[in-house]
Amino acid sequence: MNFAHSENAQALIARLQNFMREHVIPAEKIYASQLQGGTDWTQWRQPEIMEELKRKAKDASLWNLFLPEDGARLTNVDYAPLAEITGRSMIAPEVFNCNAPDTGNMEVLVKYGSEQQKRDWLQPLMAGQIRSAFCMTEPEVASSDATNMQATAVVEGDEIVLNGRKWWSSGIGHPNCKVIIFMGRSVSADDTHTDKHHQHSMILVPLDTAGVQIERMLPVFHTFDEPYGHGEVSFRNVRLPLSAVIGGVGRGFEIAQGRLGPGRIHHCMRAIGAAEYALELLCERALQRVAFGKPLAKLGANADIIANARMRIEQARLLTLKAAWMMDTVGVKSAMSEISQIKVIAPNVATDVIDAAMQIHGGAGLSNDFPLTALYAYARVLRIADGPDEVHRGVIAKLELKRTTNRLAAIGDVSDV
Amino acid sequence: MNFAHSENAQALIARLQNFMREHVIPAEKIYASQLQGGTDWTQWRQPEIMEELKRKAKDASLWNLFLPEDGARLTNVDYAPLAEITGRSMIAPEVFNCNAPDTGNMEVLVKYGSEQQKRDWLQPLMAGQIRSAFCMTEPEVASSDATNMQATAVVEGDEIVLNGRKWWSSGIGHPNCKVIIFMGRSVSADDTHTDKHHQHSMILVPLDTAGVQIERMLPVFHTFDEPYGHGEVSFRNVRLPLSAVIGGVGRGFEIAQGRLGPGRIHHCMRAIGAAEYALELLCERALQRVAFGKPLAKLGANADIIANARMRIEQARLLTLKAAWMMDTVGVKSAMSEISQIKVIAPNVATDVIDAAMQIHGGAGLSNDFPLTALYAYARVLRIADGPDEVHRGVIAKLELKRTTNRLAAIGDVSDV
Amino acid sequence: MNFAHSENAQALIARLQNFMREHVIPAEKIYASQLQGGTDWTQWRQPEIMEELKRKAKDASLWNLFLPEDGARLTNVDYAPLAEITGRSMIAPEVFNCNAPDTGNMEVLVKYGSEQQKRDWLQPLMAGQIRSAFCMTEPEVASSDATNMQATAVVEGDEIVLNGRKWWSSGIGHPNCKVIIFMGRSVSADDTHTDKHHQHSMILVPLDTAGVQIERMLPVFHTFDEPYGHGEVSFRNVRLPLSAVIGGVGRGFEIAQGRLGPGRIHHCMRAIGAAEYALELLCERALQRVAFGKPLAKLGANADIIANARMRIEQARLLTLKAAWMMDTVGVKSAMSEISQIKVIAPNVATDVIDAAMQIHGGAGLSNDFPLTALYAYARVLRIADGPDEVHRGVIAKLELKRTTNRLAAIGDVSDV
Amino acid sequence: MNFAHSENAQALIARLQNFMREHVIPAEKIYASQLQGGTDWTQWRQPEIMEELKRKAKDASLWNLFLPEDGARLTNVDYAPLAEITGRSMIAPEVFNCNAPDTGNMEVLVKYGSEQQKRDWLQPLMAGQIRSAFCMTEPEVASSDATNMQATAVVEGDEIVLNGRKWWSSGIGHPNCKVIIFMGRSVSADDTHTDKHHQHSMILVPLDTAGVQIERMLPVFHTFDEPYGHGEVSFRNVRLPLSAVIGGVGRGFEIAQGRLGPGRIHHCMRAIGAAEYALELLCERALQRVAFGKPLAKLGANADIIANARMRIEQARLLTLKAAWMMDTVGVKSAMSEISQIKVIAPNVATDVIDAAMQIHGGAGLSNDFPLTALYAYARVLRIADGPDEVHRGVIAKLELKRTTNRLAAIGDVSDV
Repeated sequence: MNFAHSENAQALIARLQNFMREHVIPAEKIYASQLQGGTDWTQWRQPEIMEELKRKAKDASLWNLFLPEDGARLTNVDYAPLAEITGRSMIAPEVFNCNAPDTGNMEVLVKYGSEQQKRDWLQPLMAGQIRSAFCMTEPEVASSDATNMQATAVVEGDEIVLNGRKWWSSGIGHPNCKVIIFMGRSVSADDTHTDKHHQHSMILVPLDTAGVQIERMLPVFHTFDEPYGHGEVSFRNVRLPLSAVIGGVGRGFEIAQGRLGPGRIHHCMRAIGAAEYALELLCERALQRVAFGKPLAKLGANADIIANARMRIEQARLLTLKAAWMMDTVGVKSAMSEISQIKVIAPNVATDVIDAAMQIHGGAGLSNDFPLTALYAYARVLRIADGPDEVHRGVIAKLELKRTTNRLAAIGDVSDV
Repeated sequence: MNFAHSENAQALIARLQNFMREHVIPAEKIYASQLQGGTDWTQWRQPEIMEELKRKAKDASLWNLFLPEDGARLTNVDYAPLAEITGRSMIAPEVFNCNAPDTGNMEVLVKYGSEQQKRDWLQPLMAGQIRSAFCMTEPEVASSDATNMQATAVVEGDEIVLNGRKWWSSGIGHPNCKVIIFMGRSVSADDTHTDKHHQHSMILVPLDTAGVQIERMLPVFHTFDEPYGHGEVSFRNVRLPLSAVIGGVGRGFEIAQGRLGPGRIHHCMRAIGAAEYALELLCERALQRVAFGKPLAKLGANADIIANARMRIEQARLLTLKAAWMMDTVGVKSAMSEISQIKVIAPNVATDVIDAAMQIHGGAGLSNDFPLTALYAYARVLRIADGPDEVHRGVIAKLELKRTTNRLAAIGDVSDV
Repeated sequence: MNFAHSENAQALIARLQNFMREHVIPAEKIYASQLQGGTDWTQWRQPEIMEELKRKAKDASLWNLFLPEDGARLTNVDYAPLAEITGRSMIAPEVFNCNAPDTGNMEVLVKYGSEQQKRDWLQPLMAGQIRSAFCMTEPEVASSDATNMQATAVVEGDEIVLNGRKWWSSGIGHPNCKVIIFMGRSVSADDTHTDKHHQHSMILVPLDTAGVQIERMLPVFHTFDEPYGHGEVSFRNVRLPLSAVIGGVGRGFEIAQGRLGPGRIHHCMRAIGAAEYALELLCERALQRVAFGKPLAKLGANADIIANARMRIEQARLLTLKAAWMMDTVGVKSAMSEISQIKVIAPNVATDVIDAAMQIHGGAGLSNDFPLTALYAYARVLRIADGPDEVHRGVIAKLELKRTTNRLAAIGDVSDV
Repeated sequence: MNFAHSENAQALIARLQNFMREHVIPAEKIYASQLQGGTDWTQWRQPEIMEELKRKAKDASLWNLFLPEDGARLTNVDYAPLAEITGRSMIAPEVFNCNAPDTGNMEVLVKYGSEQQKRDWLQPLMAGQIRSAFCMTEPEVASSDATNMQATAVVEGDEIVLNGRKWWSSGIGHPNCKVIIFMGRSVSADDTHTDKHHQHSMILVPLDTAGVQIERMLPVFHTFDEPYGHGEVSFRNVRLPLSAVIGGVGRGFEIAQGRLGPGRIHHCMRAIGAAEYALELLCERALQRVAFGKPLAKLGANADIIANARMRIEQARLLTLKAAWMMDTVGVKSAMSEISQIKVIAPNVATDVIDAAMQIHGGAGLSNDFPLTALYAYARVLRIADGPDEVHRGVIAKLELKRTTNRLAAIGDVSDV
């Protein structure tokens, strides 16, 4: 295992940290003041400061760093610390055009998009001119099991017709969001000929297509994450030419699988960045507030809480680096257990450390005077999004037991299973 | 130990459950639709349905049940299950005029209020005509240590002059809130004559008194708990006649101590009610959602999660009943350890069980489609309000070690401490 | 719920505490010195002091207190604190003739024994003249699932023939052990006529019966619990008259079920007594040892550890009392969830608190200078014996979900399951 | 960070694994049968098979691998996986002459020993001809605070005189143990001139020196770890020439500090090896035992238990490799937090995973039929030895807060502390 960062990556780390300190962090309050949020999402506006920051980031060549193919050509190990740095600010990812779900969507188009699709959607996405959403999760079924999907994407002649209801389509409320990647079943649920991993398709849907209706925005712990939003969207007889299908009808599952690996590294490193930031705030508060004649750091179990947080963050980071390194060296498939491991560990470490930071801040920690509730909501969602903890633990156990079965078979001790 | 409920209490339990089912739960959606919330707290309005529910509750004699003296004359053991029942709905406590901080404020006035104070404030509070707030916590200091308090309440002739800044004054945003109980230092911080438990006073402050300024409302996990609100309030040379002092200058600490015991039973039982409700929702979802061909209840560790939640709720309830029984039989002072114990246990059980319920609901659990985030915010605040977990653990350990010291002394084995 | 102890029980509590303090605790060292332990179990001897203590206990009428029918006629709620008191000493239960598995075996004989069986075995057991063992668990199968049982008890004419291998037959190494209760299948494993709860029988087997062979004693964390021992026993064509069958052929399961309820209260209360004792030792050490200029109690998270232990013990005790109270008032069957709950909670609380006590004692806590390792082994075994945690959590979840199903059915919301 | 193993190390890993599989593991039962254990430590004998294994290991050049200076010249990163491999067998370390406390003692002699000391003691130790013990911990004080030490090592003319009582002197019961390293105060406790890190000395004491008395062996969870043992030793006016002092009078603390870094990597990697082995056993049992018609792996939360164990082991290993890498690249002093972190994490992961493995094995897991109790005892001791968890958490928190103070100072925000 080698987690050493290339010279290129080391230079980027330094430049990104400087940019964060000089431009992004100071802009957070301006952003908040320019943000027209509120419950009526149709009134949401992009704060001007964001476009200014994006220009500066582009000028500084801190742009599309996530993209191995056409971006900064970084390995996962090299991108990981950059993702961690952006985890300290909820507005940072967009500044650097590294915001989910655009990152995943761009990767999909780079790998599977037609020339036309790339020209129409990938280019403006990479330029930061538009934003996108991803419509997969559905309200009526347990989406942790992807085979539950009910939305349909049926070929009729040279068109494909979409029907269904999706939710948790993050970013769809953004004024710049212009396109959706929609996933649906292309064969009927009782089809027994097509194997279950070739029954779905992914389609590029311009947001203004007839039949696409954003029904509402869903809050997370009472916040709408304006101006991004998490939308519930209905699709009623939405008709698109077959050229809108990504990679061909029936390849939805394959594309979805490939989409998730790097995205999980990004999310986990951002969660670790959030946890690291929360620990900084925790320690500062622990030193600066005094009760019973002592700084909080010297009271009760607070020192242990700090030590435990430090140990958990260190371990989560190392594990994520290992997963990244495996993806770089042996590929996503061989890193399946490790990817599931970080997907469980990083968000749980983050929620726990942030919660501990809240606690030491007292009431202030639960208010908006500190970024803790926003970081918490981000990390808490991650325990569900991209596969809930439960599914990932199942994957890890399955792979572990497979290894056991192989070991037993090798020594001729055939298990009963 | 005897946790058996009196016949009177048993009848009240049945009636309260019916009232909740018939009137309160069905009204929740109407309440939400009538609520004018939003970030501008000056526009908050009392939903009409609430006044209607209050009238019905009064007619049904389900009113002021919390009050041992002039209310239903229930013991703490008898009131506990009633508080638990109201924990299932965030709007229930006001319906029955059993909402914090009014409950604590009313108790203070019953015990320490002058005839004039009772007439002016206790009577309209008990009638549900007005609401009140309690101003104790301060933004600039660690309020977990009450001796940190900086606000002043200084006697000048026949007046008392208040200065300082308070926050987390819950309920102060309510349109019906008319009066505050303010706590401040009446002797200077370097006074060495007055013992530290006689340096503070509590004063009744009409909300429209000159110099009282509500600066803003504080969100909790992004929600303002409209129309109650948690306010930050400044007091600048607020002058009131000495008749506004409760119980006499210098009795603030004594009154504060007495105020907390029953309130903690109420809060803890409500938290347990919230946890019980969350477990119901969890089990229902676990049976109704299907993934990988099975209801979630049969997948992974979900059955263990259910079992663990059940065990923790049972234990938290029994412990709270024990604390209530001790308060009833040997008094608050002898129940100090038990009261601190429930104050740690009940909110932690509630947050954990609610979090588990969120997880099994997937994204829906984090939205407002279920009451889980509201219940979570309530329970999470409780880990800080009325003394954070850390302070209560300290109290429990101190009393335990005192017992050890006594035991060692009795056998002549004098410890080094 | 009413956990108040009867006057009779209160008097017994006081007398038992006195007896423990005056006679049992001081005898522990003598007992240890008289004990001929070691790996060769055939050399184990009953320490004389034990017989002396038994005589004293009998004289003091502190004898067979566990037995509701012919003993002290105590309810489970009344017996619970007595069991807790005996949990402080590993030698106490035998002193009072309240030692597992004799207690369970005596209960079985009281309820199901024939007159002959009572005369031959119950009387000497109740008199403390002999001891007994219980042979149920088997080495070759997962005994957490009782239907896995492979040992057979087949009727041949007027005899019953036993075959099989049992282990964890506790107490079988004791010089006074004279009789076994053996459980085995009386119908073949592929019998489809007999329902699965009527396929087993229980048989009284004198230890010197031909074909009964104690193969070895099993250590628990390296201790053999001399002179009791946990035996592995083989049964090869052991022939006994049908009069040796308890309650009739095929009633094994029924008897086993009834046997477990009160026994779990006993074990759990003893585990709680062990935890309470460990917390006492922990607090004493925390006050008496000094590091970095302070008693350990004032260092790091030690106060929190003490507070957490106190809260967990309190809750475990209340839960056990609730289970006892339900057994007394509504019966074992209605208390099934609560009995499983305490079976999970009490041993886990005990192991955790004892482990914390070990930690604060440093190396000494792991040695035999303190009783902690012996208490730990006892509590740790309980997490497996009489049903492992996992099985009990399953029972609790199942009953909880059944309640959910009933609730949903009542409101017409039929679940998918 | 680069955890890649050198070619040399990779070859050693393969050879060590082979040697373990071919020679050590098959020898474990023979070793156990040849071991003359029991409570009378004076009768303990070295099993012949051990000397045979040592010869084979030496022949295979798998000898003194731990020693960077004169042994295999491995970095800590390179030695780590070798230590992990030996963690699977309690007898392996001695086979390869890599057994504590000899490893630490040899390192001390390599670095600080005089030529004479090296000739007399280091050479036979490195040859595996003799063994040694380390006498630091004392029964009368909290040894977690090294300044508590009461034993004295006072210079009188050209002699040094030792007095005091030590315990937990591991390995002192071994028939081959010939020498002790003793640590004691060389200035009086009320000396105010000598700084507190120059008050102690380390002295080489032949075990047969007059005045050295082994008082007893201490069991750990009822096992004596025969033939190594953990001794309690008294020193009464033990006189030695000044040439027996290591590195000079007053350098005891300095030597002790240096002694601990690599030793902690060894212990932690062995603990991780033990955890990995326990997880293997757990998974095998989970697949091979059947209850309620399914292998245990498919029941309840068992899959989650497996997944959690895998994640914790992975993280603990990575953290230990990071600490090793830091020791190799920036030195022990800069790796202080990381060394303390692994010292907390690795033993706790090991005890928890081993406990989970015990649980799934049922009663068998607590017996000696599986190595789990022996592994558990080893890992449990580690939570106390070489600094208890509590002290290490304190170190981690202190270093974290120091970093916070520096950060705050850098931005001019001087903390109150």
